[in-house]
Amino acid sequence: MHPRIRVVTLAVADLERALAFYRDGLGLVSPGIIGTEFHDDVSGANGAVAMFELEGGLILGLYPRAELAKDAGLPLEPAARTEFSLGHEVGSREEVDALLARAEAAGARLTGGPRERPWGIYSGYFADPDGHLWEVTWNPQPQGDEAR
Amino acid sequence: MHPRIRVVTLAVADLERALAFYRDGLGLVSPGIIGTEFHDDVSGANGAVAMFELEGGLILGLYPRAELAKDAGLPLEPAARTEFSLGHEVGSREEVDALLARAEAAGARLTGGPRERPWGIYSGYFADPDGHLWEVTWNPQPQGDEAR
Repeated sequence: MHPRIRVVTLAVADLERALAFYRDGLGLVSPGIIGTEFHDDVSGANGAVAMFELEGGLILGLYPRAELAKDAGLPLEPAARTEFSLGHEVGSREEVDALLARAEAAGARLTGGPRERPWGIYSGYFADPDGHLWEVTWNPQPQGDEAR
Repeated sequence: MHPRIRVVTLAVADLERALAFYRDGLGLVSPGIIGTEFHDDVSGANGAVAMFELEGGLILGLYPRAELAKDAGLPLEPAARTEFSLGHEVGSREEVDALLARAEAAGARLTGGPRERPWGIYSGYFADPDGHLWEVTWNPQPQGDEAR
């Protein structure tokens, strides 16, 4: 497998709410909800999604949880917050605090910090309105170990 | 917020098993489990992780679910497969099929395809040994809509 990820798609309960959080709350740029014209007769999944272009050729997608379940051929399972986290690196301790405050103001819940971790980073988590975890990190030693 | 993600950390039940799946099964390159010397007295989280450097400056991390819960200040929740998916784009329909077959041989479960989706891609999903979804996609129109 080539060492790459093209899209990170987050399952959401309410596409409009999730779009508002990331676009209006956090300031990411998106053309809004697209794909509303698509319906998959095989799986029953609707096509409406929201997407954000990130650096490095990565796309952040938002897709209703029920539609992801259909598209992936799985039963819909209860939401869980301890499945993954997305690490977002910033340039200073103050930027960690500022972004966490902005996320909270936009409707996120702050969890787990912010504080220094023994593995050399300063970080704190927020859970987005669907419970998806982001860890906002500052690493004084940029080549260090930061993936937790 | 800057439009970027530095790390995608997957919560896993068994770090050795997850490392074997991605390294030995799928062929991603990792130095193996690191950070075993770290323990966070505040949260109780241990520091052992496995990481893979991906293209575009992205890191794929594997971290035990119980440790992620502690580090993020959340109760451990039951595993759920319908929280997110990672989109992996390849260059042809045959490559989609081949990667899905390789993932299955390495211990993944195939779900949801492979087949053409009405939004213009050919894709199929696999769930890794922890249930994390990857959608392997081929898009005949590379500028199209692929984040579901």
